[in-house]
Amino acid sequence: MAGKLQGIFTPTLVPLDARGEINESELRRFLAWLIEKGVHGLYPNGSTGEFTRLSLEERRRIVKISCEVAQGKVPVLAGAAEANVRDTLAACEAYAGYGAVAVAIVSPFYYRLSPDSVYAYFAEIAKHSPIDVTLYNIPMFASPIDVRTIQRLAADCPRIIGIKDSTGDLSFMMRMIAAVRPIRPDFTFLTGWDVVLTPMMLAGCDGGTNASSNVVPELMRQVYDLTKAGHYQQAMQLHTRILELFDAMLLPFEFPDGFRCGAAMRGFDFGRGRQPMTAAQQVDRAALEKVLRCILSDCGVVDPPASGCAPRGGSVQQDRIAQLALEIVGELEQRGVICTKR
Amino acid sequence: MAGKLQGIFTPTLVPLDARGEINESELRRFLAWLIEKGVHGLYPNGSTGEFTRLSLEERRRIVKISCEVAQGKVPVLAGAAEANVRDTLAACEAYAGYGAVAVAIVSPFYYRLSPDSVYAYFAEIAKHSPIDVTLYNIPMFASPIDVRTIQRLAADCPRIIGIKDSTGDLSFMMRMIAAVRPIRPDFTFLTGWDVVLTPMMLAGCDGGTNASSNVVPELMRQVYDLTKAGHYQQAMQLHTRILELFDAMLLPFEFPDGFRCGAAMRGFDFGRGRQPMTAAQQVDRAALEKVLRCILSDCGVVDPPASGCAPRGGSVQQDRIAQLALEIVGELEQRGVICTKR
Amino acid sequence: MAGKLQGIFTPTLVPLDARGEINESELRRFLAWLIEKGVHGLYPNGSTGEFTRLSLEERRRIVKISCEVAQGKVPVLAGAAEANVRDTLAACEAYAGYGAVAVAIVSPFYYRLSPDSVYAYFAEIAKHSPIDVTLYNIPMFASPIDVRTIQRLAADCPRIIGIKDSTGDLSFMMRMIAAVRPIRPDFTFLTGWDVVLTPMMLAGCDGGTNASSNVVPELMRQVYDLTKAGHYQQAMQLHTRILELFDAMLLPFEFPDGFRCGAAMRGFDFGRGRQPMTAAQQVDRAALEKVLRCILSDCGVVDPPASGCAPRGGSVQQDRIAQLALEIVGELEQRGVICTKR
Amino acid sequence: MAGKLQGIFTPTLVPLDARGEINESELRRFLAWLIEKGVHGLYPNGSTGEFTRLSLEERRRIVKISCEVAQGKVPVLAGAAEANVRDTLAACEAYAGYGAVAVAIVSPFYYRLSPDSVYAYFAEIAKHSPIDVTLYNIPMFASPIDVRTIQRLAADCPRIIGIKDSTGDLSFMMRMIAAVRPIRPDFTFLTGWDVVLTPMMLAGCDGGTNASSNVVPELMRQVYDLTKAGHYQQAMQLHTRILELFDAMLLPFEFPDGFRCGAAMRGFDFGRGRQPMTAAQQVDRAALEKVLRCILSDCGVVDPPASGCAPRGGSVQQDRIAQLALEIVGELEQRGVICTKR
Repeated sequence: MAGKLQGIFTPTLVPLDARGEINESELRRFLAWLIEKGVHGLYPNGSTGEFTRLSLEERRRIVKISCEVAQGKVPVLAGAAEANVRDTLAACEAYAGYGAVAVAIVSPFYYRLSPDSVYAYFAEIAKHSPIDVTLYNIPMFASPIDVRTIQRLAADCPRIIGIKDSTGDLSFMMRMIAAVRPIRPDFTFLTGWDVVLTPMMLAGCDGGTNASSNVVPELMRQVYDLTKAGHYQQAMQLHTRILELFDAMLLPFEFPDGFRCGAAMRGFDFGRGRQPMTAAQQVDRAALEKVLRCILSDCGVVDPPASGCAPRGGSVQQDRIAQLALEIVGELEQRGVICTKR
Repeated sequence: MAGKLQGIFTPTLVPLDARGEINESELRRFLAWLIEKGVHGLYPNGSTGEFTRLSLEERRRIVKISCEVAQGKVPVLAGAAEANVRDTLAACEAYAGYGAVAVAIVSPFYYRLSPDSVYAYFAEIAKHSPIDVTLYNIPMFASPIDVRTIQRLAADCPRIIGIKDSTGDLSFMMRMIAAVRPIRPDFTFLTGWDVVLTPMMLAGCDGGTNASSNVVPELMRQVYDLTKAGHYQQAMQLHTRILELFDAMLLPFEFPDGFRCGAAMRGFDFGRGRQPMTAAQQVDRAALEKVLRCILSDCGVVDPPASGCAPRGGSVQQDRIAQLALEIVGELEQRGVICTKR
Repeated sequence: MAGKLQGIFTPTLVPLDARGEINESELRRFLAWLIEKGVHGLYPNGSTGEFTRLSLEERRRIVKISCEVAQGKVPVLAGAAEANVRDTLAACEAYAGYGAVAVAIVSPFYYRLSPDSVYAYFAEIAKHSPIDVTLYNIPMFASPIDVRTIQRLAADCPRIIGIKDSTGDLSFMMRMIAAVRPIRPDFTFLTGWDVVLTPMMLAGCDGGTNASSNVVPELMRQVYDLTKAGHYQQAMQLHTRILELFDAMLLPFEFPDGFRCGAAMRGFDFGRGRQPMTAAQQVDRAALEKVLRCILSDCGVVDPPASGCAPRGGSVQQDRIAQLALEIVGELEQRGVICTKR
Repeated sequence: MAGKLQGIFTPTLVPLDARGEINESELRRFLAWLIEKGVHGLYPNGSTGEFTRLSLEERRRIVKISCEVAQGKVPVLAGAAEANVRDTLAACEAYAGYGAVAVAIVSPFYYRLSPDSVYAYFAEIAKHSPIDVTLYNIPMFASPIDVRTIQRLAADCPRIIGIKDSTGDLSFMMRMIAAVRPIRPDFTFLTGWDVVLTPMMLAGCDGGTNASSNVVPELMRQVYDLTKAGHYQQAMQLHTRILELFDAMLLPFEFPDGFRCGAAMRGFDFGRGRQPMTAAQQVDRAALEKVLRCILSDCGVVDPPASGCAPRGGSVQQDRIAQLALEIVGELEQRGVICTKR
């Protein structure tokens, strides 16, 4: 590949149609819009793209579409993790053929593996991959990749060219960079934690793969540009706004459902996700939409809601009354006091 | 289905051939041996069966083979979790057709879902499944299923007939049984924690899906029979022996590699697992084989090693010198003091 | 000392008067009642006794009182952990003088120490203590003591004669016993997890230090006697009842406030604890009292409430409506919709 | 008090003499040196000051000495947490009398309390305290104080004027500031995580209470001044050096022993800490001294070791050979192969 990965790589959401199938035309329209809004690259099959809820064939189809829409205008970093080394390598081969610039491979998940096993897994893939590989560290969901293991992989495997880290831990980022840069100046560091992109870049990080860039690609791009130009304080002011948006989409919902909701407000039909929701969760989603509309209209990217917005006093505010009322109803039902079902 | 699930259900290991493919003839021979040794049922596609490292097609093939070998002599409880509800329901349909008595479905993994989402997921599957469903709770690897959620699912979904719990937490088992038995006397409780089967049964549990029964099926059966007959103290004495074996296979290795090693000693060719190993891990495995042979010969199921066995003084003893020596070598290499690679 | 520690050691609660001082006369009356109800020993200054909320002088006074009430009729195991080794040794000396049979020392807390440091701490104390020492393992609150460290301490320190483990993890108990009994047949194992005393004893445990024995000493004694006599199933039936009581006192409250509430129902004035409570928490406590009275009257130790008891359907049931209502009120207040304060 | 707390507050270490008593003359000399080197304030009785290993009387003596040495040249923020609310309030009163500008009170520890109880605890103290109070959040060791609770306390209690947060979590800091600044512009935010002071300040934080400032007060001051002046990149370069030092003192040792070792190199006799050490730990400490001397001489604050320094290649490097050799010796001893004791 030519040049280092840097900038904002959007871990793209996947629109589904009424039958729950990939909505290809909407996906193409969405990806083109992201590129137009200024993101530096596409990153299909990440956690935001719910790769674990797709079939192997669907994951391929999504990368193929992404490469077609990107057409070399922006690079595609393709999530390529499959059930085992052999299937992963087959995906690497396919994605190289489609024109992806590199693949991202999440650390083994379900089983929590030791550092030695994490090393063996990535070393084996790197040995045979026909395309550059970036590690993907997300200890919340998958086996952690520790600093020593990253250092060993960087030293031993030229095919491994970078890491995407989703911990949001700035000290960890600094430790990684201190351990790897001296031996691999070309190594790329990307952060998956949207709200601290500026400090991460100040610490030496090359950019981010940020779920929020599905919803406000122009803002994430602006944060990146301001930071790159050394305007750290202005960038941090934007971060405060992004934090409010991020928390509203992240905290009260199953990831990435709040982000699907936010991206839909930008004019795309994302349909319903594949994880079923209870009635209470659907009520919450309606409440989110109103809050999101208020935040997004503050950001100047959508119109405010007709009913107006309450003044907001911090990032932790959220509508709890509806939820509490539903809990009471559930409680009364369970005791047989009332009956709302059927 | 006729009658409640009870007894020892072996979460079957999968033999692989030299190319890493399912070794079908060895699998058939192994399953037949387990049945002959007295296990009450087969449980393919569990965590021990490394279902996440297989393809969708491989998982189907394994259930088909298991049903063919079982031939109605013992029930097959088939692991049916796929990437999403639709694919899972397709697997349920297929497994019903093969003759499985029920399916086991692990709680959603990778993403850690809230109790409400776990409820919605299982309720949706139960609504459409053509075959009885057992929940599979393994919070170490997947979203936890809490007592209240189990109670709600048991109350709302007649298709859900039981739960396999792998926490090994006796208080949790007692809480589940206290919450569910009064409303669903038919509900089955199985434990996945081998070393406390007897106390779990004393608390009301119906049996176990125990990885150790791949290695010492006759001992696990004996523990079950002794417990069932009320000979708790004799059963606990056997447990002490099983604990030593279990810890030797579990603690120093990535699960289920130590169990593959143990089962191989019973005369089956399991090949190498799909997760790559470092050189150091392969050395450890050789050390394990010797320890296992000693424990298994004490149990009377294999011959002792030619070189004899050291006296053992507790369950935490393990060979550490080889490991430490290797760590030193690695440390010296990293500093450039010595060089052992190629 | 003469003979091994065994049986039910009550980790005694501390009654406080209206000014928040130790209510000495009530404490004496309470301790005498416990002995009369059949507990095998007293264990002042445990977690249930809130030793961290007392001053050094208060801890001494409580042990002195306990020894005076016990008068050699039952042994006193005195919690002796102080801020550092020197102060702890001074407490050991004092407690030996008061007539305690042994001291219990919790693993260092606040800082989470490594196994080596935990070893060094206990080894240093054991070297100088004039009285037998039991280790106290409660990883929820203090540095964990792992199996290897227990084994090393048992091997190296004759002064250390046992361990109280509050994990409730049966596998851990089995591992400890397997590692220590062969080298120290005299070593005592006590469990601090009330609801699994019978299985723990089946695994070789000598008894328990159970918070519930402050509330239902006669039931805990009965469980112990039934288990000792080999009537495991009858003992387990009692455990189901104790589990309901235990969870009602443990889950919705700060430990040990629910137990203070339960013990008060047996006719003692415990006063208010030293940890302040919010208004909402005080409402919860009133709800608990009604539930406890129902459970305790089922156990035959108190009269049922005048208003009668709802039928109970499992151990997780608890009154949530009052709590939810209060949350709503709080939510509305926070938004400035209503104002209840002042 | 006059003006907001800001800048570097050193959480001061405590020198001990050969008998393990507070070495008062050395403490006075050390505190005076810190002030001379430019720290903005003193913070006795923090975690770095090992307040839990001191007696109540010793904690008072240390605050008194600190106030005497500070003499109003720099403010003293005095750690005032005691066993219960009453004793804590008595300490607050005493410290106000000594001339402390405010007290810092750690969240309740040992028991892990719910947000409501944490609120009740601090609200009760704030209601009666004669001196301004800062909250101290260190979830690694004590009950966490969540954003909502901080917001409630800031809104309800004018006596509470700030928080020291030791999580090192930048997102958490941003959430706190977003939730509290709008309602309490005067509220102070200090970070206890040395290596990210600059990004924390960029996010709005007022300064830090940093253990490293015991060892390199001039460097921490320089980082603060550079950041304050908007020279973020230069400040980050210093952070890389501080990270190396910090990790060398933090990772291989029990906190704060590595920091005691580092501060001793600046010419003070800290003596041995109160937590006993094994022989292996004492060997490690000797290795640390050499590494520290190399890092500190790079920083220009001490002379390099006579034997010279190896080139360093990252922050995770540390001497492991000695440790591994000792582990082998321990292993061989445990098997009875060799005997080194006595």
